[in-house]
Amino acid sequence: MADALVGIIMGSTSDWPTMEHAARTLEDFGIPWEAEVVSAHRTPDKLYRYATEARGRGLKCIIAGAGGAAHLPGMTAAITDLPVLGVPVESKALKGMDSLLSIVQMPGGIPTATFAIGKAGAINAALFATAMLAGENPEWLAQLQDFRARQNATVKAAALPPLA
Amino acid sequence: MADALVGIIMGSTSDWPTMEHAARTLEDFGIPWEAEVVSAHRTPDKLYRYATEARGRGLKCIIAGAGGAAHLPGMTAAITDLPVLGVPVESKALKGMDSLLSIVQMPGGIPTATFAIGKAGAINAALFATAMLAGENPEWLAQLQDFRARQNATVKAAALPPLA
Amino acid sequence: MADALVGIIMGSTSDWPTMEHAARTLEDFGIPWEAEVVSAHRTPDKLYRYATEARGRGLKCIIAGAGGAAHLPGMTAAITDLPVLGVPVESKALKGMDSLLSIVQMPGGIPTATFAIGKAGAINAALFATAMLAGENPEWLAQLQDFRARQNATVKAAALPPLA
Amino acid sequence: MADALVGIIMGSTSDWPTMEHAARTLEDFGIPWEAEVVSAHRTPDKLYRYATEARGRGLKCIIAGAGGAAHLPGMTAAITDLPVLGVPVESKALKGMDSLLSIVQMPGGIPTATFAIGKAGAINAALFATAMLAGENPEWLAQLQDFRARQNATVKAAALPPLA
Amino acid sequence: MADALVGIIMGSTSDWPTMEHAARTLEDFGIPWEAEVVSAHRTPDKLYRYATEARGRGLKCIIAGAGGAAHLPGMTAAITDLPVLGVPVESKALKGMDSLLSIVQMPGGIPTATFAIGKAGAINAALFATAMLAGENPEWLAQLQDFRARQNATVKAAALPPLA
Amino acid sequence: MADALVGIIMGSTSDWPTMEHAARTLEDFGIPWEAEVVSAHRTPDKLYRYATEARGRGLKCIIAGAGGAAHLPGMTAAITDLPVLGVPVESKALKGMDSLLSIVQMPGGIPTATFAIGKAGAINAALFATAMLAGENPEWLAQLQDFRARQNATVKAAALPPLA
Amino acid sequence: MADALVGIIMGSTSDWPTMEHAARTLEDFGIPWEAEVVSAHRTPDKLYRYATEARGRGLKCIIAGAGGAAHLPGMTAAITDLPVLGVPVESKALKGMDSLLSIVQMPGGIPTATFAIGKAGAINAALFATAMLAGENPEWLAQLQDFRARQNATVKAAALPPLA
Amino acid sequence: MADALVGIIMGSTSDWPTMEHAARTLEDFGIPWEAEVVSAHRTPDKLYRYATEARGRGLKCIIAGAGGAAHLPGMTAAITDLPVLGVPVESKALKGMDSLLSIVQMPGGIPTATFAIGKAGAINAALFATAMLAGENPEWLAQLQDFRARQNATVKAAALPPLA
Repeated sequence: MADALVGIIMGSTSDWPTMEHAARTLEDFGIPWEAEVVSAHRTPDKLYRYATEARGRGLKCIIAGAGGAAHLPGMTAAITDLPVLGVPVESKALKGMDSLLSIVQMPGGIPTATFAIGKAGAINAALFATAMLAGENPEWLAQLQDFRARQNATVKAAALPPLA
Repeated sequence: MADALVGIIMGSTSDWPTMEHAARTLEDFGIPWEAEVVSAHRTPDKLYRYATEARGRGLKCIIAGAGGAAHLPGMTAAITDLPVLGVPVESKALKGMDSLLSIVQMPGGIPTATFAIGKAGAINAALFATAMLAGENPEWLAQLQDFRARQNATVKAAALPPLA
Repeated sequence: MADALVGIIMGSTSDWPTMEHAARTLEDFGIPWEAEVVSAHRTPDKLYRYATEARGRGLKCIIAGAGGAAHLPGMTAAITDLPVLGVPVESKALKGMDSLLSIVQMPGGIPTATFAIGKAGAINAALFATAMLAGENPEWLAQLQDFRARQNATVKAAALPPLA
Repeated sequence: MADALVGIIMGSTSDWPTMEHAARTLEDFGIPWEAEVVSAHRTPDKLYRYATEARGRGLKCIIAGAGGAAHLPGMTAAITDLPVLGVPVESKALKGMDSLLSIVQMPGGIPTATFAIGKAGAINAALFATAMLAGENPEWLAQLQDFRARQNATVKAAALPPLA
Repeated sequence: MADALVGIIMGSTSDWPTMEHAARTLEDFGIPWEAEVVSAHRTPDKLYRYATEARGRGLKCIIAGAGGAAHLPGMTAAITDLPVLGVPVESKALKGMDSLLSIVQMPGGIPTATFAIGKAGAINAALFATAMLAGENPEWLAQLQDFRARQNATVKAAALPPLA
Repeated sequence: MADALVGIIMGSTSDWPTMEHAARTLEDFGIPWEAEVVSAHRTPDKLYRYATEARGRGLKCIIAGAGGAAHLPGMTAAITDLPVLGVPVESKALKGMDSLLSIVQMPGGIPTATFAIGKAGAINAALFATAMLAGENPEWLAQLQDFRARQNATVKAAALPPLA
Repeated sequence: MADALVGIIMGSTSDWPTMEHAARTLEDFGIPWEAEVVSAHRTPDKLYRYATEARGRGLKCIIAGAGGAAHLPGMTAAITDLPVLGVPVESKALKGMDSLLSIVQMPGGIPTATFAIGKAGAINAALFATAMLAGENPEWLAQLQDFRARQNATVKAAALPPLA
Repeated sequence: MADALVGIIMGSTSDWPTMEHAARTLEDFGIPWEAEVVSAHRTPDKLYRYATEARGRGLKCIIAGAGGAAHLPGMTAAITDLPVLGVPVESKALKGMDSLLSIVQMPGGIPTATFAIGKAGAINAALFATAMLAGENPEWLAQLQDFRARQNATVKAAALPPLA
């Protein structure tokens, strides 16, 4: 496989059922990706190394998913100057409202691009990464436009069942 | 001025005190930008035209700010396939929580990259746009890294006043 | 069937288990309706066409249901000048609070009449549409008053089980 | 003045600074209206009488504004079968979130059409009432369409100040 | 059975699984009670009659349970001058937060004594009614004190299982 | 002055601008009251003594106001078996939502009757205490009914200013 | 077993499935602990005794878990001057948001150290107690550092499954 | 001054008006402290160094204050094994609810002891630090007990003004 252009990181293997949707979406577009568990809280050294080396390793952006007091996206953005895309993973008690606020409410100076809580956010982070890469890659742009056209057509073709 | 690379749109002139921070940030980096009032609700025709023509006019991304039932970022993203960055403007009664949820909770398929409520979000959307553009422009990357280094230094040099 | 007077639209087939209650309620009153999937985000072209043509096609109002960053009711109201009734569909993580705020917090100038989250809201949007139509149709007014009287009688006749 | 077609009621004179925007909007369209203080909690007898007599007196709909545990719209809708439009007035501590939920979360069977918290909601309730009435009155429809066109044009003409 | 001293009302039979805990608690203290479905929205006439006649029928207080836009306790309190105790029933989407705010945020002038969301609130409304009645009835006071003493003893005797 | 029948306690002198409305209301009805600062957190010994001695000193109920992590009403109710009425004082950051939840969400077994956040809640706690006492005191009942009638009349007489 | 250094208390046996994680964590570090049901509301006398005697019995800190209107941590901290660690137990309706605010929003003067809602909070309260004790006990410090190192290593070794 | 035992860090000089209350409290107890601006996002390198060196420099605990997406306490706790005390600083739009959730909702494994939003939290973090240190220092324990006794006496002596 080609060297990854998009790095997907998450705080725990328990975030994978959410974050695999980002991986699947990139895979479908043929965009090289990698995925790893990197915990801001439990492996801060690994996070520092990952974020520090990301640009040099050829990554174009990083998608970071985390739940609860979700510090992974913001801390990654604090260390690298690559674009960082944050996905709030749905948490047990507060249903991801804590994850969302922890990721999106960054102070001026260090941005994280934040997407919806859960699966939709993971898919959309990958689509956004694709749109960024498509700016310089006509093939991916064509694919993205094709995806959008098919999505439009699918919704248009959707039929409602008869009234029960 | 060179053709704009970043389009800044907002639902009302009352959003400008927030969104001008995005413009100011881009200006400081020397990135060509434009700003316009485009209301999803009051000028849907203008929104359609703006979003449809954006790529062709050379824009690389769109920063959209809106408050309350904030539909501008999501609807822009529904029409263009450029990356769309959403800034939730602080609303009167609910303090931007309505703006935030209206922007960030997009369904899978159409992403909006969302930033913090208010001024910090406007600044960060512009910094994120810069980071995206910097991927293909070494000069802007150097400037971004310089901004980050200066910001780091400024915080390090910050002195607390003596205890009252 | 007579030409529809009430159009029911929703962002996805997954909204149908909620929105079919609107259809069922209108059906019970004998009010001609139609239902379709129209996604603000995934089929903005279809939304524009639907909303633009609605009055000319004889619709008297539109019931629009959507969840999460629910832009369908507001964008429909932005394009048509028919009355638009919004139903916040219960979302997975935030339980429809995002849907509700995205629909109800419209800026002055473009109204959406908003109803309760979920099934109750779908039923009530249909009852409200009926009440609007009843203003010019004595038969439907009589039916509405009969429905209200029966509802009143049913609640009065409701018996509580003995204490366990 | 012609007999009122739209009744505006509110729980207290302190709601008038919000609700007068509904009156002003109707006045501008030339739609006959009336406004009164009717408190669900402090004058339940007056509320019963008002709601019971509303249709007979020629009202076509009722706009009810209230704050906090806002029961006025729902109780009005419980008594009359006219369309009832609820406006959540911004409350002191909870900023209208209590007003909003008290109005919008009606059980299936008795609808209240709910609008945004505060001034925007009052304006929009009046615009919605206008849209309802316009269905049978070409003159008001023309006025509504003219209002919408002017609003669209005003937003399009809005100019942003130069960057400070 | 003696004439009821405490009236328990609720908006729907679906509230009974919550409100029966109030009945059960009163039953255990031997306090005469009655329970009925009275809907503020669907049977406003019944509510008016129930609340108007309550004092004359010998009731000392009314426990009213309701969910969502829960108007029953407040409207009962608006009509009778008996003490009214409100129980927020857990709602589907918003988990009773709407019920709670609709009941507790009454304007100055018409009080409802509000208890916790759900079963605990139903039990506590009954215990509070008992405490009110105990002020004039030494037997019920003795029973209440006995209940409290036994509750205290039960908690003290509670043993935790060994660590798994 | 006669011995107090209603004890008003609060966690801090800073709660007095809210709680004095309870005192004023009782004073207007001629119901003997007392008011004291009793902090659950800073003077737990005083709280224990106050709550333990309350019934013996002739108090019929206790109104307790507190803000933030508001434990005073619940802890008072834990010690005395008199009825305890809780008033959530508006807090600085969270506007009394913390106060409300800390007071109302009591576990089954120990009730606190909770009223609205702030001034309205203080007035209503006093009116509720009056309604409790009125059950055994025809004079206070007459006064309460007179207050209610005057309140009703005042609202009915309220005139809205002409449209600006 | 050695005399307990950490006391774990909770309002009900139903809190044990959460709080046993605190006990398990301490047990794994070999730190002597004890656990008991102590209810602020149902056994205030026991709470007073427990908190008063805690320092004399050799406890170094107290971990208190409670849900809903969670007064146990704050009231324990009001009576003892030992460090008190609060764990918000997830509540049924409001998912622990009530528990969290009731514990954390203490007024200046009486602190409770608050941890996350539910199991994670129970574990972390125990780890925090360990960190406090480790300040004076090199063996526990070594164990804590070893735990942290192993945790770091475990996360680093975590492998994601292949994309489905 | 003796070497600091408590380190106070905060993300920005704008946090000092909140955090100086922690410094003032420690100063009053004569506990050596230091204060510095350390931003998790803008100076991650400084944070790593600060947290890494803290134990070796003799600090016994760290008090970290931050607002919005408040990552400073959690990231400090991720790097050092000293006890970390988090103070949520009140944020502009969301009033510190974002700060609170970002700090308190840490995953199991890395604790942060969290205190109230704003000034009360800063004072209490310092009092908690004092209580921790008092465990091994009889003088500070005596001072803490004296503070508590004086606080108790002050509240007891607090007099309410006469009713206006």
